Amino acid sequence: MTTVKLLTDQEASPEARAVFDDIRKTRKTDYVNNSWRAMANDPKMLKRNWEKAKEIMGPGALDPLIYITVSIMNNCEYCIHTHSHFARNKGMTDAQYSEMLAVIGLATEGNRMMTAMQVPVDERFKVK
Amino acid sequence: MTTVKLLTDQEASPEARAVFDDIRKTRKTDYVNNSWRAMANDPKMLKRNWEKAKEIMGPGALDPLIYITVSIMNNCEYCIHTHSHFARNKGMTDAQYSEMLAVIGLATEGNRMMTAMQVPVDERFKVK
Amino acid sequence: MTTVKLLTDQEASPEARAVFDDIRKTRKTDYVNNSWRAMANDPKMLKRNWEKAKEIMGPGALDPLIYITVSIMNNCEYCIHTHSHFARNKGMTDAQYSEMLAVIGLATEGNRMMTAMQVPVDERFKVK
Amino acid sequence: MTTVKLLTDQEASPEARAVFDDIRKTRKTDYVNNSWRAMANDPKMLKRNWEKAKEIMGPGALDPLIYITVSIMNNCEYCIHTHSHFARNKGMTDAQYSEMLAVIGLATEGNRMMTAMQVPVDERFKVK
Amino acid sequence: MTTVKLLTDQEASPEARAVFDDIRKTRKTDYVNNSWRAMANDPKMLKRNWEKAKEIMGPGALDPLIYITVSIMNNCEYCIHTHSHFARNKGMTDAQYSEMLAVIGLATEGNRMMTAMQVPVDERFKVK
Amino acid sequence: MTTVKLLTDQEASPEARAVFDDIRKTRKTDYVNNSWRAMANDPKMLKRNWEKAKEIMGPGALDPLIYITVSIMNNCEYCIHTHSHFARNKGMTDAQYSEMLAVIGLATEGNRMMTAMQVPVDERFKVK
Repeated sequence: MTTVKLLTDQEASPEARAVFDDIRKTRKTDYVNNSWRAMANDPKMLKRNWEKAKEIMGPGALDPLIYITVSIMNNCEYCIHTHSHFARNKGMTDAQYSEMLAVIGLATEGNRMMTAMQVPVDERFKVK
Repeated sequence: MTTVKLLTDQEASPEARAVFDDIRKTRKTDYVNNSWRAMANDPKMLKRNWEKAKEIMGPGALDPLIYITVSIMNNCEYCIHTHSHFARNKGMTDAQYSEMLAVIGLATEGNRMMTAMQVPVDERFKVK
Repeated sequence: MTTVKLLTDQEASPEARAVFDDIRKTRKTDYVNNSWRAMANDPKMLKRNWEKAKEIMGPGALDPLIYITVSIMNNCEYCIHTHSHFARNKGMTDAQYSEMLAVIGLATEGNRMMTAMQVPVDERFKVK
Repeated sequence: MTTVKLLTDQEASPEARAVFDDIRKTRKTDYVNNSWRAMANDPKMLKRNWEKAKEIMGPGALDPLIYITVSIMNNCEYCIHTHSHFARNKGMTDAQYSEMLAVIGLATEGNRMMTAMQVPVDERFKVK
Repeated sequence: MTTVKLLTDQEASPEARAVFDDIRKTRKTDYVNNSWRAMANDPKMLKRNWEKAKEIMGPGALDPLIYITVSIMNNCEYCIHTHSHFARNKGMTDAQYSEMLAVIGLATEGNRMMTAMQVPVDERFKVK
Repeated sequence: MTTVKLLTDQEASPEARAVFDDIRKTRKTDYVNNSWRAMANDPKMLKRNWEKAKEIMGPGALDPLIYITVSIMNNCEYCIHTHSHFARNKGMTDAQYSEMLAVIGLATEGNRMMTAMQVPVDERFKVK
């Protein structure tokens, strides 16, 4: 149940179809996933987000780990599932996944304690 | 301006003092930062969080990058400053910092678009 | 699966029934939706929220666009669906919906970048 | 106190300088604000975000109202101040500002109540 | 630095003045704090929020503890300070404050772990 | 659909099994719920979180009320359901539940208004 239609290749505009084609070529797969089919309702949004993803996401597990972390903090079910999947495909190990979860747990608790007590930054830890 | 007192060594209880001493020994510095001095108002909280931090935070830049990412998502000024500082000390390069910011920007926008349109997870991206 | 019962007209208290009746009259529909049936467990909460909604939500598409934006930021599935529905009924066009999503994407990324780098407000942009 | 340097025109790379120049030309002002000077540490990020902002932000008060709403939900001090300023310059009236705040208040409370009680979407309000 | 003016008694409209007077009478103090002076820019918002606060906030420390918890989760500096102050005036002890912080830390970490791993609710824990 | 396997007693490591046994003994039930079976994928995380929960969660309804409040603010479906269930078992009344929801609604709206208008803390409400 989405708030927009997930557009098939036939329903997508030519501009959106061109992005679908580039996704297929770049990722070497025939499958275009739901995120792009939803964004295709606004071909400019689709193009902008795909170009950005192509430019930013590098090889290796670091970028997916950051991506999953953000998705957990934003509580995005779609993104948690797809990027956990992508990360494993890119070589994320079980140990890295556990390490990521442990740091998220540590940080999110630490963050709230500092906010709760409104602790000021130590002079020496001001970066600039 | 905090909601609790930042306890000096003299004001801290013996249990809190013992944690301060372990922080000094473990980190090879005489400086105990404000986060621990705030938590010292509840010596059990102080001990629990320090033990957890010691157990979890490994060497290298990955853990600090995850920590900073969570802190940005939680909007924790104290944590953003101190952990950006720690990360640089542990070897985070400018390129890694830029990469982290770029992925955060990409992910946080992507997350909101998926949430806005309530996009369902593709069958093939369900991890288990 | 809710944490409270969705009360039918028969189960609702007289005070809650009176609010249901006002909803029906004001909205010119016999249908009372789940949000009110959940709130009916606390008739005062029901009355307070209905009175507030009646006072605030004006005609036209602007208010629903703001409402949907907040609901996306709070990740409220119920509210995203119902208010996307209401907004279309009140005349929200596809172009307005796309514009809203584009601005949300732009803003949420920009927000995180400013927070990440702790950028101070320019003197000239302080409103007062 | 930022985590990066706010780059002056002299310190910015040629690629970043070119974006500064385009900002000046597009906005018909000599002033380049702090957000761009912070992003200039990563010229690609600067270019990407400026191009996106130029493409998305339209004339009139609607887009700024959505932008401010997102910034309030993300608790971004920098963005709340600058975009409240921009919105007034673009013609946002006091009545529109009050209306926006009232809807944010109504929605954010309503969102939390629906989440608290895990209320399911009514069949008839599923948009598709 | 606010985005609106904090209205003095002289600047407030008669409707807002009437609310200021009720605050003074109800709280048995001559001091009207900044939150109300900011809301006075929209007298209806002021009245609505004051009436709601008067209706909801009961005696004892429980309500303030919930209020502070929400404020910490929303990262509201103003609200954390004022309600920590109010809570102490209403009898919140240091032990209660520590207990609240400990539960917030426990819950916020637990929440993120469940979200990260997308753990489904056990059949037996569905409330209704 | 989780991102990790919910481990049965047979699949769990000896270290994780020992925690399961302690959960059974402490809670006087044979049932080990999904949260622990998910965390069992990282036995250290399981042990750390269980020990912390055992240390922090006291008898009576106050701690569960704080826990549910945090879970609502973090939008954690799993936690809202399980802790609403636990709270009722520990004696939370319908009146307490309604009171908690009312304060959450009041606070979350008040928080956003203060953030929107960037209201500064009154000198007299600075706790220390």
